[in-house]
Amino acid sequence: GMEWFAFATLGIFTAILSFLMDLSATKLLRAHRWLYTQLEGHTLLQFVCWTLYPACLCAVASSFSHNICPSSTGSGVPEVRSMLAGFVLSPYLSITNMFSKFLGLTCTQAAGSTLFLGKVGPFVHISTTVGAYLGKLCTLIQADKKDAAAGQMLVVAAAVGVSSCFGAPVSGVLFSVEVMSSHFALKHYCPCFFSAACGAITFRLLSVWSGDIETFRALFKTNFSTDFPFCPLEILLFAFLGKMCLCLLSCCYLFCHRWILRLTKTSQIFIKVLTTEKALYSSLVAFLLASLTFPASVGQYIASQLTMRQLLTSLLDDRQWSSATHNASVQPSLEWTSPGTPVYLPLAVFLLMKIWMLVLACTLPLPAGYFMPVFIYGAALGRLLGEGAASVTSGQKWSTSLNPGGYALVGAAAFSGAVTHSLSPALLAIELTGQLSHAVPVLLATLLANGVARSSQRPSFYDAISISKRLPHLPSLAKACPLLLSKPVGELLRSQPVQLQKAAALQEIQHAVSSSSDAQIPVVDSNEETGNLLGFALRSDLLNLVRRGKIEAWAVGQDKHLDEVCTIFPLSVLLSPASTVQEAYDVLALVGAKTLFVADRGRLAGLITWSEVSSVSPLMFIPSPV
Amino acid sequence: GMEWFAFATLGIFTAILSFLMDLSATKLLRAHRWLYTQLEGHTLLQFVCWTLYPACLCAVASSFSHNICPSSTGSGVPEVRSMLAGFVLSPYLSITNMFSKFLGLTCTQAAGSTLFLGKVGPFVHISTTVGAYLGKLCTLIQADKKDAAAGQMLVVAAAVGVSSCFGAPVSGVLFSVEVMSSHFALKHYCPCFFSAACGAITFRLLSVWSGDIETFRALFKTNFSTDFPFCPLEILLFAFLGKMCLCLLSCCYLFCHRWILRLTKTSQIFIKVLTTEKALYSSLVAFLLASLTFPASVGQYIASQLTMRQLLTSLLDDRQWSSATHNASVQPSLEWTSPGTPVYLPLAVFLLMKIWMLVLACTLPLPAGYFMPVFIYGAALGRLLGEGAASVTSGQKWSTSLNPGGYALVGAAAFSGAVTHSLSPALLAIELTGQLSHAVPVLLATLLANGVARSSQRPSFYDAISISKRLPHLPSLAKACPLLLSKPVGELLRSQPVQLQKAAALQEIQHAVSSSSDAQIPVVDSNEETGNLLGFALRSDLLNLVRRGKIEAWAVGQDKHLDEVCTIFPLSVLLSPASTVQEAYDVLALVGAKTLFVADRGRLAGLITWSEVSSVSPLMFIPSPV
Repeated sequence: GMEWFAFATLGIFTAILSFLMDLSATKLLRAHRWLYTQLEGHTLLQFVCWTLYPACLCAVASSFSHNICPSSTGSGVPEVRSMLAGFVLSPYLSITNMFSKFLGLTCTQAAGSTLFLGKVGPFVHISTTVGAYLGKLCTLIQADKKDAAAGQMLVVAAAVGVSSCFGAPVSGVLFSVEVMSSHFALKHYCPCFFSAACGAITFRLLSVWSGDIETFRALFKTNFSTDFPFCPLEILLFAFLGKMCLCLLSCCYLFCHRWILRLTKTSQIFIKVLTTEKALYSSLVAFLLASLTFPASVGQYIASQLTMRQLLTSLLDDRQWSSATHNASVQPSLEWTSPGTPVYLPLAVFLLMKIWMLVLACTLPLPAGYFMPVFIYGAALGRLLGEGAASVTSGQKWSTSLNPGGYALVGAAAFSGAVTHSLSPALLAIELTGQLSHAVPVLLATLLANGVARSSQRPSFYDAISISKRLPHLPSLAKACPLLLSKPVGELLRSQPVQLQKAAALQEIQHAVSSSSDAQIPVVDSNEETGNLLGFALRSDLLNLVRRGKIEAWAVGQDKHLDEVCTIFPLSVLLSPASTVQEAYDVLALVGAKTLFVADRGRLAGLITWSEVSSVSPLMFIPSPV
Repeated sequence: GMEWFAFATLGIFTAILSFLMDLSATKLLRAHRWLYTQLEGHTLLQFVCWTLYPACLCAVASSFSHNICPSSTGSGVPEVRSMLAGFVLSPYLSITNMFSKFLGLTCTQAAGSTLFLGKVGPFVHISTTVGAYLGKLCTLIQADKKDAAAGQMLVVAAAVGVSSCFGAPVSGVLFSVEVMSSHFALKHYCPCFFSAACGAITFRLLSVWSGDIETFRALFKTNFSTDFPFCPLEILLFAFLGKMCLCLLSCCYLFCHRWILRLTKTSQIFIKVLTTEKALYSSLVAFLLASLTFPASVGQYIASQLTMRQLLTSLLDDRQWSSATHNASVQPSLEWTSPGTPVYLPLAVFLLMKIWMLVLACTLPLPAGYFMPVFIYGAALGRLLGEGAASVTSGQKWSTSLNPGGYALVGAAAFSGAVTHSLSPALLAIELTGQLSHAVPVLLATLLANGVARSSQRPSFYDAISISKRLPHLPSLAKACPLLLSKPVGELLRSQPVQLQKAAALQEIQHAVSSSSDAQIPVVDSNEETGNLLGFALRSDLLNLVRRGKIEAWAVGQDKHLDEVCTIFPLSVLLSPASTVQEAYDVLALVGAKTLFVADRGRLAGLITWSEVSSVSPLMFIPSPV
């Protein structure tokens, strides 16, 4: 009973946070826009306003996260993945981290499309932190089911992040399923959906109450025709979009991203600047990006006046821009089309400029999401293909019903799917726009893009961050070192672990407790010949025993066996030294245990904990393969 | 590479089967309708035509499945669940089973709304059979990765069943996730989506080519308003629909279903009739149902002239029938409304009649799905509430925009979700109608209905069938006997299993091979004192050894140890007698192994296979608790 209230609270609280962030970012953006229009006619002042505003915001966000909690920079999804796989990364779940991430992210959002960064990833991280605290609260109240509740809360929180961010419950849960390392436990399924639904309802209700929208509807409203969404033959074009264009561009983008990640880790200048002068670096980069997107310079070609949300909405427009330039009765987005120039030009310039700007923005040491920019970039690519197809086929019977917005939708889902190596962007694209009519092409293109992107063991966007940040996440590590998964655990074992004989004396117990910090201490047979592993005793029980033994001056071993004075828990699952790292990883995740015992022919060979599994990682971190 | 072609083939082939079945059922239905209208004016002849046609079809379907493959009757979903959990139920995967299921199901479908049975469940079964054969083909070609490929193919096939049945890829995969017993392995995720997308595309392309529809669109077309789908306050009504009405009715339906299931297993008359006179029983029941739905009798109130598909489409109509009876300009479904009677009457009669007709139809020994009838029943219930809400609030400002079709959609998803204890009906409802605007209320109502339905460990519809058919499926068994999951595996072990000493002589090997049929034979230390478990030898290797030993007259044990002449495989995971049935079940499913070894302090205690886990079941089968 109790935990369901916690799930609901998690959803509602995260949705409120998300709504507050949107509200403040919108207000800040509007203030900037107002100032900019007030300065109409004074180009220099306008330039100063356009560039200094995001630069200041970035400096604030950077110095904030640098001073309060350095681990709050970046996306947060790679860290969440590691935590969901069972590793404990406590700095990433602190309340200060959440606080600085929230404030920093609001600043990043307020910088708008100049900085071109999103909020999904950090929001998943924020919701995970909220979930961790709620989980702790639950375990305080219900002390009996401790570890399970905390673990479940993290899985649910990962699902809630996406749901509350966009009011999209289904794709949130599918994101959580995909992020889980290797096996999704079905007992989390209902809680995930429940919490995600609570989050989505709250997020939309808040939007309704604030007067933003009249009632529940998709975040990005589209007007695709439901009677004839697309011609069946267009399936081939959608498949081509998924397979060729997106794969080439996503590989190019990921290559640049890996290259710059390595540069920030190897170049001395970068290392120096990023450790000491974070705020300065952020503001300089923001200034550079802003001066390029200034509407009087290159900005006029790339619709830089639009906010992120307006950009996506304009790209998903169902009217053909190319026909609109001839036909005055149709009013397309004025920002993208100008009389005399073909519509391909601004889209092509947008694609060319934004790819390197995005890669550069990834190096900024501030809380930022990288999903939404990639999503919009994919939409622009799809739009370009759609407009191309519309003009090539102009004159054909079905050309007038060809909807470039559909291509933009498919492109957005497929590109973000290819970059993150996941399928949930397909669902997210459908939920964000409410266009279920395009479900099949969106899914097809995302699958094809994923197929090519995953084919040659290349790391995904998040994998590259995991590898570069040396986070313990086995699937990423496996991409850097494919042999890792089949390594036998016998090679990872610590030298002979602390163990207790069944007939141990008080001194031995005392020695074992003081020399080991593990929560479970293995107990073996007293027979020297066999020395079989019997089970484990809890360290806390042994500590009690030692304390009691001291007072009563009573020595175990002389009169009593260890198992008579202290519970020896039987081991439910044992590994052998021959089992692989993958098996150990799976069993650890499955059993939900913190420690697994490895026995060779009945004798204790060692202990495997998450730290052993992750201890392989430093060995593998030869500079990340580009 | 190879297996991806198999996944695509699986999707395409299943979709073709589904399309062919729809086509033939529609033709048969149309023939019946033509004959019926030709007899206009001769009520007696019309009655004969109306009743004998479905009775004959049922008799054909029953005798077909009785004579060719008795295991082809019923839904198939409970069997698929057991097979996905790892149990081998070979009669259910035979080609004759698939053949008789396909033909029988076509007859059931052709009987139309008189019989009121669907096709989802059997189709999942058919696709699983196709998947199993394709899996065998794959393992023939790629001999190296045998078991994994076959297991994966089954999981994918379960997803393809739903997708090909309705052209709904996403809910198909989510169904597969939910059906998997406790852990969904993420390596199946992409194959599932890929195959489901292939199936959905093929199914829709076939519909386009056959001229049924112009282009890809939802199977059940709806015209809900996207600008104002529902008023935010209506969320409360939707929640009420999920929580109260549906739960009461679903509990009532499940109670009746369990009652009749027990009756068919305990009543001597039922047992006798159902073993010897299947065809007669089927035709009699069909005759009874048909005479009640005859349009000149009760049928006129329950829109019995409509096919299953027309029924659902009419219930999802977005116009208010109650206002249409006053307003002549709006033309609602003529079958449901008649001047002078309130619209509640036919809906209430429909709900009252169909519940017991459906329960009776569940006893028919022919291939039939029980999902779609439940879905339509839920839609009628939702419609009733929606019409009620529309008339109660008539005069209010937002009453005119109140859409009873939305309530029908929510009711359909929530009722079928409550009956099957699953969430995928929510997604299915959205995909079938293309109404993403109602995603949040549909999900909310399904969650609430599930919450109440699952609360007191009551078995779901499929659980009840599993229990009554004594199928090995742990979660169902756990509902019949909650203590089962925490039982230690030590209690299930067979008496001392066949084992080999490391220094075994040829006679001992010969004896072990002849007295055990397990594929893996455990090898223990020769030291009598310790007798530690070393690993296992493959039975096939030992058989080779024995054959070789006979020819060469060479005895192991005198000159060589067993491990020098035969590979002894190390054990990767060991269980202890103290681990629970749940843990054993999870580890079996996770490791993908057929056998787990249980060792007590290093010594072999026994083997656990799926048969041990399922051997508990007969003990638990005290008559199923109603």
